Amino acid sequence: MKPLPGFRDLFPEDFARRSYLVGCWRETARRYGFVEFDGPTLESAELYRKKNSGGEILGQLYGFTDKGEREVALRPEVTPTLARMVAARHRDYPKPLRWFNVGTCFRYERQQRGRLREFLQFNCDLLGDSSPAADAEMVALLIDLLRSFGLTNQDFVIRLSNREAWYDFLDEHGVEKGRAGEFLNIVDKMEREPAEKTEEKLVPFGIPLAALQSFVQRAEIPSLAPLLSDLEARGLRDFVRPDLGVVRGLAYYTGVVFEAFALQGNLRAIAGGGRYDRLLADLSDGSADLPAIGFGVGDAVLLELINEVAAAKTQEESALKADAPVQIYIVIAAEEKRPAALALSQKLRSEGWRVAFPLGSERVGKQFGTAESAGATLAVVIGAEWPVVKVKRLADRHEEELAERDLLAWLQENRNLKAD
Amino acid sequence: MKPLPGFRDLFPEDFARRSYLVGCWRETARRYGFVEFDGPTLESAELYRKKNSGGEILGQLYGFTDKGEREVALRPEVTPTLARMVAARHRDYPKPLRWFNVGTCFRYERQQRGRLREFLQFNCDLLGDSSPAADAEMVALLIDLLRSFGLTNQDFVIRLSNREAWYDFLDEHGVEKGRAGEFLNIVDKMEREPAEKTEEKLVPFGIPLAALQSFVQRAEIPSLAPLLSDLEARGLRDFVRPDLGVVRGLAYYTGVVFEAFALQGNLRAIAGGGRYDRLLADLSDGSADLPAIGFGVGDAVLLELINEVAAAKTQEESALKADAPVQIYIVIAAEEKRPAALALSQKLRSEGWRVAFPLGSERVGKQFGTAESAGATLAVVIGAEWPVVKVKRLADRHEEELAERDLLAWLQENRNLKAD
Repeated sequence: MKPLPGFRDLFPEDFARRSYLVGCWRETARRYGFVEFDGPTLESAELYRKKNSGGEILGQLYGFTDKGEREVALRPEVTPTLARMVAARHRDYPKPLRWFNVGTCFRYERQQRGRLREFLQFNCDLLGDSSPAADAEMVALLIDLLRSFGLTNQDFVIRLSNREAWYDFLDEHGVEKGRAGEFLNIVDKMEREPAEKTEEKLVPFGIPLAALQSFVQRAEIPSLAPLLSDLEARGLRDFVRPDLGVVRGLAYYTGVVFEAFALQGNLRAIAGGGRYDRLLADLSDGSADLPAIGFGVGDAVLLELINEVAAAKTQEESALKADAPVQIYIVIAAEEKRPAALALSQKLRSEGWRVAFPLGSERVGKQFGTAESAGATLAVVIGAEWPVVKVKRLADRHEEELAERDLLAWLQENRNLKAD
Repeated sequence: MKPLPGFRDLFPEDFARRSYLVGCWRETARRYGFVEFDGPTLESAELYRKKNSGGEILGQLYGFTDKGEREVALRPEVTPTLARMVAARHRDYPKPLRWFNVGTCFRYERQQRGRLREFLQFNCDLLGDSSPAADAEMVALLIDLLRSFGLTNQDFVIRLSNREAWYDFLDEHGVEKGRAGEFLNIVDKMEREPAEKTEEKLVPFGIPLAALQSFVQRAEIPSLAPLLSDLEARGLRDFVRPDLGVVRGLAYYTGVVFEAFALQGNLRAIAGGGRYDRLLADLSDGSADLPAIGFGVGDAVLLELINEVAAAKTQEESALKADAPVQIYIVIAAEEKRPAALALSQKLRSEGWRVAFPLGSERVGKQFGTAESAGATLAVVIGAEWPVVKVKRLADRHEEELAERDLLAWLQENRNLKAD
């Protein structure tokens, strides 16, 4: 028996990696004053069909009819849920809202390499402020998020763009506003498609490929100036690059859009987001007219990038090592002392140590083996000498004899042995 | 727009409570050397229909046919997934396995007070050891889990039982083994049903209600003796009570079963589990014949109990307060100093502080109001005196002037202001 295609089993070693990832996500978001929320895994399918929220996501909706004859769907992304929640309760919170979510999302995509049907996503949104200062806060958060994994500006760049610039471009070329979405989809895909294909798609718009290419190649995007000088003041200017080639795929973006792009290994987008100043009003029929900006990152692509960048991989490995399942292993050298071992293990656990011991009678050598494979730093040996115990540091086999009543004080002094 | 019936929106204040809960779950499990795993939210429905895994859960399965014509179901519990994963890979891990999971589960139940269709569950399982020492480790973990919320033996008791004792009882009354499940369901429900109803259900078994009642009232369960003396050695004997009235509802339990029962407020089961020595072999057609014991706790019932017990509520409140969204608020008293404020906020964040500042020009008084409502401990005021700043402790309005370059050292000395 296996998981369904596109779904993952996370064995403890896989979970530990994800947990490291999620820990960095949460830690960074909280440093920016963001608070976490969550919504249901299952929503009414209508939430995703509403104007502007969909795009290509609709075709991949994991939907079904429930036993109560409701059309429901596993959430393909969290933004519509966020919009629904904020529309319902935004009057209860001071603005701007700084909210984030770490949640599992689902897309029924055709099975292909690396495409999952269930994946974990980090979403971060700032609502109720339409200024470039808010844009800068989000871009800075994304930069620090990636830096928290040990990634540098050699490893990624944030490509910054503004859909407003594209609306101006379309206006100059006499294309009506209603066709902007269709046009931006062409721009979004052009990097990954042969030029002929893009050219063909442009025909109905009457725009020559060369005009498009020369617009994309502009190094300056005047509307981004306030955002760039804010980032400059933060010392983060080196992490971003204005780039009109970025427009993002989702239909609901309105202004600034951005994407973190990997400069190492497999070159690709690793996170993206943008301003969606009309989505809340649209989803709430005008009752919550809040400007908003947000971005999302998936777990799979980030884990892949960490694997490809040596410094990030090293940082991950030492974090995982420091977070070992067991810190102190109690070796029971004389079975008749088991009750003492039980009492001691409870005492150490109540002091916050991660403690294990053999559940049955076992050779001392085997117990030391278990201690090491569980990542323990210390072994406390309980034998005939009880209430005197031996404390053994597993890294260098250094050994001390102690009265059991002095053990807690000794551990207190050697607290650095207790990771995290 | 609302969530679907039986589904919850977790606004930041709700999420913070859940996060406190999950933090205690994880912390306690890890002190016992347990490691976390996770599986897919969606599984093949067949996994739940297999022999022994079902019981009443089957009728509440949140199932549907996916676009690939597969019969699938949102997981109603995690144990079948665990069994599937362990069957696939148990040879890769030393025994016993100590695994836990915090996962969202789904049951399509008729809507009633407090019954949710999506809920969070903590599951903890020890696999590969059938000894009473393993049973004791799990019961101790459950006790410490509840104690981690500030609950005491005045607030809950672990009722301990053993299905083996019931099998002996049935044997004495000439009831064949195949009917044990049906019979145990009667025992499981008898506390919550009128005696007449139980009596009626017993007719087909030819067992008088009085015989059942007198068996349940036995204070001693000889087979529990080793487990009890292990708990005694740990100093946990006062938290448990042998009680044959507990049999648990799930079909797959085989030996020791237990349930944490609230002694305060609304008297009810708050967690439960037991030994399921045959489930893995059954689910894996014999390829993974591992004995196992585990338990589960849901989030809703535990949050309710914490609300009812004053000491637990106080502990929760102070944990939430200590975990405020913002620690340092940067007050911008002179708008032209914003670049300095931006640089300082990035510096403090990179030191691990949770920092916020106004995104636009605001009155200083309003900024202090925002700082306080976000739970900040300190305000750093940046004004015309820059690079001299004012540090203000919000609790007692104590104020100091500092050169900005000395700020980090000052914070280092006052590190206790930075809650976890």
